[in-house]
Amino acid sequence: MSIACLIHGALDLRLEQETPAPLGPHDVLLRLGAGGICGSDLHYYQHGRVGAFVVREPLVPGHEASGIVDAVGAEVTRVKPGQKVAINPSHPCGRCDYCHEGRGNLCRQMFFLGSASVFPHAQGMFRERFVMGERQLTPVLESEITLGEIACAEPLSIGLHAIQRAGPVLGETVLVTGGGTIGCMSVIAARLAGAAQVIVCDINDRALAMARTVGADRTIRSDQVGAAEFADVAHVSIEAAGSPAALATCLSATRRGGRIIQVGTLPPELSFPANSLMARELDYRGAFRAHLEFDWAVQAIRSRRVDVRPLISAQLPLERSKEAFELALDRTRSTKVQLVSPTQPEQHR
Amino acid sequence: MSIACLIHGALDLRLEQETPAPLGPHDVLLRLGAGGICGSDLHYYQHGRVGAFVVREPLVPGHEASGIVDAVGAEVTRVKPGQKVAINPSHPCGRCDYCHEGRGNLCRQMFFLGSASVFPHAQGMFRERFVMGERQLTPVLESEITLGEIACAEPLSIGLHAIQRAGPVLGETVLVTGGGTIGCMSVIAARLAGAAQVIVCDINDRALAMARTVGADRTIRSDQVGAAEFADVAHVSIEAAGSPAALATCLSATRRGGRIIQVGTLPPELSFPANSLMARELDYRGAFRAHLEFDWAVQAIRSRRVDVRPLISAQLPLERSKEAFELALDRTRSTKVQLVSPTQPEQHR
Amino acid sequence: MSIACLIHGALDLRLEQETPAPLGPHDVLLRLGAGGICGSDLHYYQHGRVGAFVVREPLVPGHEASGIVDAVGAEVTRVKPGQKVAINPSHPCGRCDYCHEGRGNLCRQMFFLGSASVFPHAQGMFRERFVMGERQLTPVLESEITLGEIACAEPLSIGLHAIQRAGPVLGETVLVTGGGTIGCMSVIAARLAGAAQVIVCDINDRALAMARTVGADRTIRSDQVGAAEFADVAHVSIEAAGSPAALATCLSATRRGGRIIQVGTLPPELSFPANSLMARELDYRGAFRAHLEFDWAVQAIRSRRVDVRPLISAQLPLERSKEAFELALDRTRSTKVQLVSPTQPEQHR
Amino acid sequence: MSIACLIHGALDLRLEQETPAPLGPHDVLLRLGAGGICGSDLHYYQHGRVGAFVVREPLVPGHEASGIVDAVGAEVTRVKPGQKVAINPSHPCGRCDYCHEGRGNLCRQMFFLGSASVFPHAQGMFRERFVMGERQLTPVLESEITLGEIACAEPLSIGLHAIQRAGPVLGETVLVTGGGTIGCMSVIAARLAGAAQVIVCDINDRALAMARTVGADRTIRSDQVGAAEFADVAHVSIEAAGSPAALATCLSATRRGGRIIQVGTLPPELSFPANSLMARELDYRGAFRAHLEFDWAVQAIRSRRVDVRPLISAQLPLERSKEAFELALDRTRSTKVQLVSPTQPEQHR
Repeated sequence: MSIACLIHGALDLRLEQETPAPLGPHDVLLRLGAGGICGSDLHYYQHGRVGAFVVREPLVPGHEASGIVDAVGAEVTRVKPGQKVAINPSHPCGRCDYCHEGRGNLCRQMFFLGSASVFPHAQGMFRERFVMGERQLTPVLESEITLGEIACAEPLSIGLHAIQRAGPVLGETVLVTGGGTIGCMSVIAARLAGAAQVIVCDINDRALAMARTVGADRTIRSDQVGAAEFADVAHVSIEAAGSPAALATCLSATRRGGRIIQVGTLPPELSFPANSLMARELDYRGAFRAHLEFDWAVQAIRSRRVDVRPLISAQLPLERSKEAFELALDRTRSTKVQLVSPTQPEQHR
Repeated sequence: MSIACLIHGALDLRLEQETPAPLGPHDVLLRLGAGGICGSDLHYYQHGRVGAFVVREPLVPGHEASGIVDAVGAEVTRVKPGQKVAINPSHPCGRCDYCHEGRGNLCRQMFFLGSASVFPHAQGMFRERFVMGERQLTPVLESEITLGEIACAEPLSIGLHAIQRAGPVLGETVLVTGGGTIGCMSVIAARLAGAAQVIVCDINDRALAMARTVGADRTIRSDQVGAAEFADVAHVSIEAAGSPAALATCLSATRRGGRIIQVGTLPPELSFPANSLMARELDYRGAFRAHLEFDWAVQAIRSRRVDVRPLISAQLPLERSKEAFELALDRTRSTKVQLVSPTQPEQHR
Repeated sequence: MSIACLIHGALDLRLEQETPAPLGPHDVLLRLGAGGICGSDLHYYQHGRVGAFVVREPLVPGHEASGIVDAVGAEVTRVKPGQKVAINPSHPCGRCDYCHEGRGNLCRQMFFLGSASVFPHAQGMFRERFVMGERQLTPVLESEITLGEIACAEPLSIGLHAIQRAGPVLGETVLVTGGGTIGCMSVIAARLAGAAQVIVCDINDRALAMARTVGADRTIRSDQVGAAEFADVAHVSIEAAGSPAALATCLSATRRGGRIIQVGTLPPELSFPANSLMARELDYRGAFRAHLEFDWAVQAIRSRRVDVRPLISAQLPLERSKEAFELALDRTRSTKVQLVSPTQPEQHR
Repeated sequence: MSIACLIHGALDLRLEQETPAPLGPHDVLLRLGAGGICGSDLHYYQHGRVGAFVVREPLVPGHEASGIVDAVGAEVTRVKPGQKVAINPSHPCGRCDYCHEGRGNLCRQMFFLGSASVFPHAQGMFRERFVMGERQLTPVLESEITLGEIACAEPLSIGLHAIQRAGPVLGETVLVTGGGTIGCMSVIAARLAGAAQVIVCDINDRALAMARTVGADRTIRSDQVGAAEFADVAHVSIEAAGSPAALATCLSATRRGGRIIQVGTLPPELSFPANSLMARELDYRGAFRAHLEFDWAVQAIRSRRVDVRPLISAQLPLERSKEAFELALDRTRSTKVQLVSPTQPEQHR
């Protein structure tokens, strides 16, 4: 038996016992290493939905996880029992037009773990033990890399995808609005991709301090700077705050011909200067989940090309899931909160 | 002496006599061939301004013109007296960061004919005779190509730039909203670039008929089709109507991962589904003027790869400028209205 | 029973009776519409191999085919009995790194019909009846489009892929070396993609005449023009002749910073001016098979955006396969030779 | 009066006294900070030519230099006396087709310092004092950045341009052949642009050690590894050794669909597997000089995002130019050798 964390509806999070699924020949039984609580998990917890995706049956959230291999199916070759693994939550179909075009993140038949976008729901990884196809797994053999770091591969992939969507940033100035997890991952990605300067705006001093820790060259309290002082400064802006005011900052700060990447979640409608976008020949681009970037993220973490450890604010065992969700909701106290297996000794996290 | 058409302010258009500027060694004296009245000319005429560009001294409008060479400076090599020429109204500086990046249309020191964006204003070409640097001129030696067609190179370059901004459209479906001059030029450009299907939306039957004439595969009265019927149909949408409703059509019609190009002039602010742009990973891109596309347009017109003649609704002599502007304002009666030299015999237009 | 054309080894082509494979739920039983003989088919016929791919068991060649639906499996939804279909011979796996990157033509597990690249061989379509997964089929409902034209979708896709590999050619000059099928398809593709001028070089007058028929603006007997006269003329060159001399022409004709696309088959080693490639900042790019371009080709043929009919030199029934292969080998007499079903009435070809 | 180093012909290097040119309103009089000896300088010294560029009058070599402002023309605004400056040796015209396309390094009217590509020659910077247009200068205000480092901006720009030509390398494996200055700059550039792994091949242990110092993850003695062991390992290869054997390594090591960038100088002709390039869909791209990358290089050096100091093997005063050239020729003893002003105190270099 194994403990799982389930969301039955808004603010209705329960711990339940379950039996892991049977193991097919290409399947792997995993124990949870660490599982980060993401904004979409928080939306399911608070509202029982994320936009159009409504919880219609109990949903196990969690798509940012690392694991330890417990057992493997008969034909598994990629991993061995005892290994730490990164887990890619994204299952594109490989057959639709988007998959053929190399945009698997937009797949028409996407199965994405921990999501109510399909029914029956794609059950996620906030559970003690679970089964996964070997194709989703990358072993991490480096002993010094922790399960907590490995679980950051998924949010790092979001930052990398945002930067990939921006096109080459080598030598450029990148503005990031929002110093939360995705904002900080965007900072890390922008630095990794060779941005000459990375500027971060937020209204929260803790977030700005974190942004500096992970590589921002300059941070700005956006509630204390006038728009006029802040025009034509960035080649690329990454809107990771998910606020109309932050988007307005991006629009004024980005030079003509620049790119603005929307990675944060915004209200359904907002006021937008579309004529200025035309006259300044801006590009406003959405960035949704990630694709090839997951593997890039795993490699960057394995080699410590990037250091995501400062972003992990706390790790709580699955039994304290509700407390962990509440902590994750409070951005004055946390960046990334992770759930860990109740049986996992601390030194391996 | 030479007649010129000047705008002194809103609805204050005057004909005046003037003496052409002296001829430098690299300059060319031209007689007007044909000069198309553009939306920005109409804005200057109606409102005395285009957005932030306000008429602060009498302005000669006109940036879509062809000419006939009258006389050449001592060192001119590109053209000879008597030749028909296409005239590029765009003078990027060649030195700023945008010019270095190959985006001359965004030049920081742009001098664009017929525009109040600089002061003293960049005087345009709605005048009988005028002087131009030879670098702006391309001779058109094909006798069968008319001065009216040549004057369409500039608006065609706008359509080509919109398509260039969309990236390759080979094999794709392109939606164009608006069947006016720029919409039709976008249709021509999309067809030229190999779009598999071009769909045009408008609320005006005359515009839709014109769009079909220049190559639209399918036309739709957008006031008669529900948004639900019209989703996920286009890889690329070109918003050339300059209306929020048309932009909404583009946003719903474009498939995930698609591109929406804003080339029409919109109100300063409008309501925009920015979160849907993120979740559907759309690209919303401005397209402003043109750059290399001017030469492409001249070549396409010279070779009749494209036929712009159906778009020329009327040609009036400079003396009837006011009447021409009024006709151009009425899209139920005209697509492109051109001014011609009072001394130019009709067969050469 | 059904007739098939098999290659047992060099110059050993036999007709044999066979029974089509059983029909799975997503499979379709097809009768051959038309099947074009390609250069690789000719290599198998002449040499029993294509480069490293050696015929190790009897191989049915043929990867350029159209068909008519005879019967469908229980769950087939894309096609119905009696319909004409285009058949995509390319089966990428959808799971490897290349597939994830959107480059299915480079798939590590590629199964490509009519090829000895895998063992057991991927049997092709020069046979009276055969079974195909429905995913490979696109119905062509337009009654005026012939089975011969539909069978040209595959070679057209090669030309389109060559052009896609060149990047946007809108407004540019494209040189094509070689006026055979692939050269002519490259001409068609370059025109479709908006090239301002298409020049074709060959040493064969019949090939040059064909190139003009399908859209070349200018043709040149490359054995009669000196290299010095022919420098800096093309933005892009498509090397479709598969000869070192033709490649040399491309290298001298392409302007600095231009792209040269290798689509023809060359000797394993040749003398190459690599330092000039560096100093002139050329791009020399391979183009291998096609991917998304197959669907583009089908659409372009369905809509007659392009007309491939002039390229079809002859259609012979399967029983006369050997004669057809010999005719296809003689480029003074043929461009594309197609095999047709012995039972197919002529008017439908 | 001022000392200059002049090449009169092969192995004929002389020191001469000269008077700096007069100062125009936008000009700046500079004292040499440091000037790196490049491979092309060595070619002029050894052979009196670089490929087609022959020394036809005494040539001052040197295009990798930093300076200190001595005096400024009346209208100069970018720099002030006493400031350290980076000097861009590249003067594109801003008007030709290449400049309009954003490829200034291919400019048809290029004036590149220290080069015999034009006549009279474009005199270079191996001289005590010289005059430069202010547009070529970027002040470096950071006191800790040395004149030697600043002079590395030009060779770093070559590495950055090679990587820019490769397209995004984020998450990819990059192979660099050659551990000399340009190879090491390519390593630095690949790391800066986010390559997941950088591998360097050379036959010289000193070069491999230097490559590791500046960021190579793995180095290989290419004379000790078989080609079979070394296939399909790199997404991108940078050929910076300028040897046919190194190019062969790149061709075998690069995976299908990968890019090979030629930045080293090769013999005019070599044997090349063009058919394999086609069948593996490789891209073989030249990289010539640099363009926007010069400014990127200055910024990266100013911020110490990259550390070029290990590459500077020795600094000799202008009076010892001949000794410096001989040292630069010996790659077992040096990577980058720089000439410095005879009057420049050591601590500022």
